[in-house]
Amino acid sequence: MSSIYKLEDILDIVNAEIANIRFTQKPESLFEPISYILSLGGKRIRPALALMACNLYTDDISKALPIAKAVEVFHNFTLLHDDLMDRADMRRGKQTVHLKWNDNTAILSGDAMLIEAYREICKVDSTYLKSILDLFSKTASEICSGQQYDMEFERRLDVTIPEYLEMIRLKTAVLLGCALKEGAMVAGAPEEDLDNLYEFGINLGLAFQLKDDLLDVYGDTQSFGKKMGGDIVCNKKTYLLINALEDPSVREDLLYWINIVDFNESDKIEAVKNIYNKLKLKERTEHLIRDYYKKSINYLNQLNLETGKKVILQSVAEQLMSRNS
Amino acid sequence: MSSIYKLEDILDIVNAEIANIRFTQKPESLFEPISYILSLGGKRIRPALALMACNLYTDDISKALPIAKAVEVFHNFTLLHDDLMDRADMRRGKQTVHLKWNDNTAILSGDAMLIEAYREICKVDSTYLKSILDLFSKTASEICSGQQYDMEFERRLDVTIPEYLEMIRLKTAVLLGCALKEGAMVAGAPEEDLDNLYEFGINLGLAFQLKDDLLDVYGDTQSFGKKMGGDIVCNKKTYLLINALEDPSVREDLLYWINIVDFNESDKIEAVKNIYNKLKLKERTEHLIRDYYKKSINYLNQLNLETGKKVILQSVAEQLMSRNS
Repeated sequence: MSSIYKLEDILDIVNAEIANIRFTQKPESLFEPISYILSLGGKRIRPALALMACNLYTDDISKALPIAKAVEVFHNFTLLHDDLMDRADMRRGKQTVHLKWNDNTAILSGDAMLIEAYREICKVDSTYLKSILDLFSKTASEICSGQQYDMEFERRLDVTIPEYLEMIRLKTAVLLGCALKEGAMVAGAPEEDLDNLYEFGINLGLAFQLKDDLLDVYGDTQSFGKKMGGDIVCNKKTYLLINALEDPSVREDLLYWINIVDFNESDKIEAVKNIYNKLKLKERTEHLIRDYYKKSINYLNQLNLETGKKVILQSVAEQLMSRNS
Repeated sequence: MSSIYKLEDILDIVNAEIANIRFTQKPESLFEPISYILSLGGKRIRPALALMACNLYTDDISKALPIAKAVEVFHNFTLLHDDLMDRADMRRGKQTVHLKWNDNTAILSGDAMLIEAYREICKVDSTYLKSILDLFSKTASEICSGQQYDMEFERRLDVTIPEYLEMIRLKTAVLLGCALKEGAMVAGAPEEDLDNLYEFGINLGLAFQLKDDLLDVYGDTQSFGKKMGGDIVCNKKTYLLINALEDPSVREDLLYWINIVDFNESDKIEAVKNIYNKLKLKERTEHLIRDYYKKSINYLNQLNLETGKKVILQSVAEQLMSRNS
């Protein structure tokens, strides 16, 4: 009889594995920032998904460890470079790398980190190496495209909802799909299941990012790690803002707050939140999140596996949707 | 009878292949800078070495094309990020990417370019994929270390000659060694030859970089692409400057020119060049270049091949040593 790991066991394994990554190369000044950003924690959702997908087809989840580590190292590499590009001061309550060190260190340690992600993923069973690498590189490239779109959206007021959804698919969803699909690949899962797991990840990722957009405005101040209303303050093109901008009845009012230079942050957050309330954007976003969640579960249900095995992935998806932080 | 390509044929193939690289992904704004920097030209020495090493063991040099393209794309990725970190204005007579676009584009297009290098190298015959990737990633990581040392040397006046030689080994030589070794690997060359080709590349690379240091001071103004004396103006820790700093008889005079804030560039270049002349550093550097050149040829001679096949690599090495630009 095969055994399915519980989520807390999976997370224990992931956290131990990430904590055990050592960079012995010189100079230390280049690799220290990599250890630093990896030590800041995070949900570790991507590596957990890789191991859980693997576990659907084998008890030996160690097969997926290179993938788990590679996707987490890669994800943190993108955070390191994104924080630099966005001039962000804080990441998970600590100083960002470019502030703690400097811009050049952030650039070069990030580059070294991307290379480390590749070194890690190359440790998979050689049978699957080529397919694993092809999907990993395709995904990595798509994430760069997503970040480029995200930055370009900053200078635009006419971003459409399909454009936005495509951006978050690239920037967030494809890595979840990749982690799931590759975790199952190294366990020898059938091709059809691989595609369904990938689509499960894509829809979960879209729901996940929309939930992030929602939490910035309607999250629990206590438990949400980031500063509440941060997206509103810096005019970030979220699903809520793009929807509001498309509504003629509030556009003028909204543009006033977008263009205002000298303002009190709480005033702006309250004013924009009032606009969102008026348009019932909380409900609209929650509705779309539920749609993507349901789609993701449909893909999960199509896996050629007994229901018992899928329960853990379903419950993870539920937790991500109902989270307050 | 097997045929050996001439250098000009190899370069024609390399240039055609590089010119044919197309990035069809979106958004174009992310991939345009990659095409731009690849279009600026350069000696294409790394891809040429990969194809020549392959050609030692097979007529079918197409086997090494993924390696040739990957090392050239990777090399240009390092130039893109290095230019940003060094705040360089010009690259091969044209604007650098971060000036033509902006810093964030340089960061993100560079990241996408590094991923493209991996996508390219993954096209090698799957028999060799794992070993090719392991050496490529090791080399890529070493090059980041080399750049980090180079940047750290900027703030130091006590860099030793062994430290300097290790830095240029990492920053420059290992990619030549990697290109040669991997070119031969995909042609099925014996293990012993692979090691000798790698060492040929290392020594050639060290000689190559020392020649660059020399040309900045003693090159032909007409044919040297970069501004003459550029290294002197910005106090770059070259082999010549490090040697001069170690000499008590000129150190005080040299420190005056290193620390001077307001100066005429030609005055500084002439003054520092006079110090180098006094210490006969041109001769000392030429001597070391010849030593590395000879070592490289020794490794070449150890290859288990008829002499006729090695002539092309020997003549390339000679050309790199005797170049004026």
